[in-house]
Amino acid sequence: MSARPTIALDAMGGDNAPSAIVAGGEKAASELGVDVILVGRRDEIGETTLPVVEASEVIDMADDPARSVRGMKDSSLVRGAELVRDGAAAGFVSAGNTGAMVAASLLRMGRIKGIARPAVATTIPVPGTTPTVLLDSGAIADCQPQWLVQFAQMGSAFASRRFGYESPRVGLLSIGEEESKGNELVKEAHPLLAELDGINFIGNVEGRDIMSDAVDVVVIDGFTGNVVLKTLEGALRSLVGAVFGALADPDAGEGAASALGLLAPLANELDPDTSGGAMLLGVDGVSIIGHGSSNAVAIVNAIAVARDMAEAELVSAMRSAIGR
Amino acid sequence: MSARPTIALDAMGGDNAPSAIVAGGEKAASELGVDVILVGRRDEIGETTLPVVEASEVIDMADDPARSVRGMKDSSLVRGAELVRDGAAAGFVSAGNTGAMVAASLLRMGRIKGIARPAVATTIPVPGTTPTVLLDSGAIADCQPQWLVQFAQMGSAFASRRFGYESPRVGLLSIGEEESKGNELVKEAHPLLAELDGINFIGNVEGRDIMSDAVDVVVIDGFTGNVVLKTLEGALRSLVGAVFGALADPDAGEGAASALGLLAPLANELDPDTSGGAMLLGVDGVSIIGHGSSNAVAIVNAIAVARDMAEAELVSAMRSAIGR
Repeated sequence: MSARPTIALDAMGGDNAPSAIVAGGEKAASELGVDVILVGRRDEIGETTLPVVEASEVIDMADDPARSVRGMKDSSLVRGAELVRDGAAAGFVSAGNTGAMVAASLLRMGRIKGIARPAVATTIPVPGTTPTVLLDSGAIADCQPQWLVQFAQMGSAFASRRFGYESPRVGLLSIGEEESKGNELVKEAHPLLAELDGINFIGNVEGRDIMSDAVDVVVIDGFTGNVVLKTLEGALRSLVGAVFGALADPDAGEGAASALGLLAPLANELDPDTSGGAMLLGVDGVSIIGHGSSNAVAIVNAIAVARDMAEAELVSAMRSAIGR
Repeated sequence: MSARPTIALDAMGGDNAPSAIVAGGEKAASELGVDVILVGRRDEIGETTLPVVEASEVIDMADDPARSVRGMKDSSLVRGAELVRDGAAAGFVSAGNTGAMVAASLLRMGRIKGIARPAVATTIPVPGTTPTVLLDSGAIADCQPQWLVQFAQMGSAFASRRFGYESPRVGLLSIGEEESKGNELVKEAHPLLAELDGINFIGNVEGRDIMSDAVDVVVIDGFTGNVVLKTLEGALRSLVGAVFGALADPDAGEGAASALGLLAPLANELDPDTSGGAMLLGVDGVSIIGHGSSNAVAIVNAIAVARDMAEAELVSAMRSAIGR
């Protein structure tokens, strides 16, 4: 790998595309020690200091993932994934249609040999302690028990490289700590995980453990994982709104204003733009999925994660974790 | 029904039993216009102004629900449910083992005719707007699509009577608004709900809608529902802790102290003790499940809900909702 890795960036993906995406890409190129290639419609991207790979089609947020990826071969999502496949980029970042990003990465980068299904790993910030990695947070709704075993292996390799955890504690998300608790999927997955070598499986964990220091990697099917992720998003938005609303009350006085200042770092820590996006694990390349509402800062953070995971050779690590 | 309904209270259930439970029962009897009967071990309950129905056994929080209910016929959970079955009480409240409360209520009160499976309906406070009812939040982990249809009917009847919603908006919890999004269960349940008369089905909702004003009743299987509930619990605890931690910093000054005062009503609104517990829907009697950590205030609130639901004749309403 060159000293200065190249990251491909989908200029057309996300609610704030292309302007905020391009701004983020330019900022990353000047600050992060990476080369950034924009992928998209040159005329919509406009003036930029970055190289552009033309892609004439755009997959919309509401488009059907599999159909659009198959049908729109000149879309920015497909072209970006091809840059990684062809070795022209060490990673690809998009804040566009998540399902289409999963499909494009799968079809163009390919699956890592031995991996049954990919999984989206999302980083959940936990105030006062290290973040928790949740997977699958939305690639595949209905899962088989064996897939959860691979999610545990992939999530463990990812958490080690992303956050430096030495032996990440992996928990199976359920509705009670006892092995006998859960739905059929979880009850079948539990013994498979318990007998697995090479990961630090701590047993079942519950929803309340996700935002605590009890676990580092939480494994579950993509339906439950995505529901959990969006439930957390909604709860944080509601609560942060309520706290700031109470303190911003004009009758609240000056104390409240200074309290708002004290709470700003916490709000920033919890902001999804800070986390650097989710990572699609199990494909043969670095594929980073930004939040649809990503601003320029979120794009910079996502590119930093793409760079770090490329440099840490996460894909090779994943391959050996599964080969074990 | 008499002007002064009688509520049976499991004196032995919960982390703070029996003292906090008995204190809550006495407070409810003096303030709520209800008669309260304690159920449990007379010698452990000690001095009280309330009548006691002796039950020599106690089902522990960790006991297997079905086995303990079948084996411990003189337990407070079984005896309390029998008081409702026999008409000696209009409702039963316990902060003990949730699974055992479900089993005892099912076995002793019986299922409402036509109901396939019961569901636990939990009230989720939403700052700035009306609460959301989530069911099933833990009675049955693996569900059939048809059961979710009945959850929608039962949840709608409950939300109307509990919160006065005229035509509660019922949403199916999924991972996208489109009918095509979700796991197999949700994709099969969606058309059944869409063609159902008598409820206001608004389609799929996402996790982020739960703590918003977008929906009144959220329907899903008991595994996902319980994960959501505990995820919310953990997130609220983490966030409230972080906010109060930042403001309680000795360097934060006086402004922070006054800000804490401004936030106290919000913290109280979100406290599970405020919500009055969860209600088991589908059994032939009023069965209220308190949080395991219930204090006396939580018990008073739970008894108030039991009284209200008995007076509103929720069980009859449920029967006609299903008969429709």
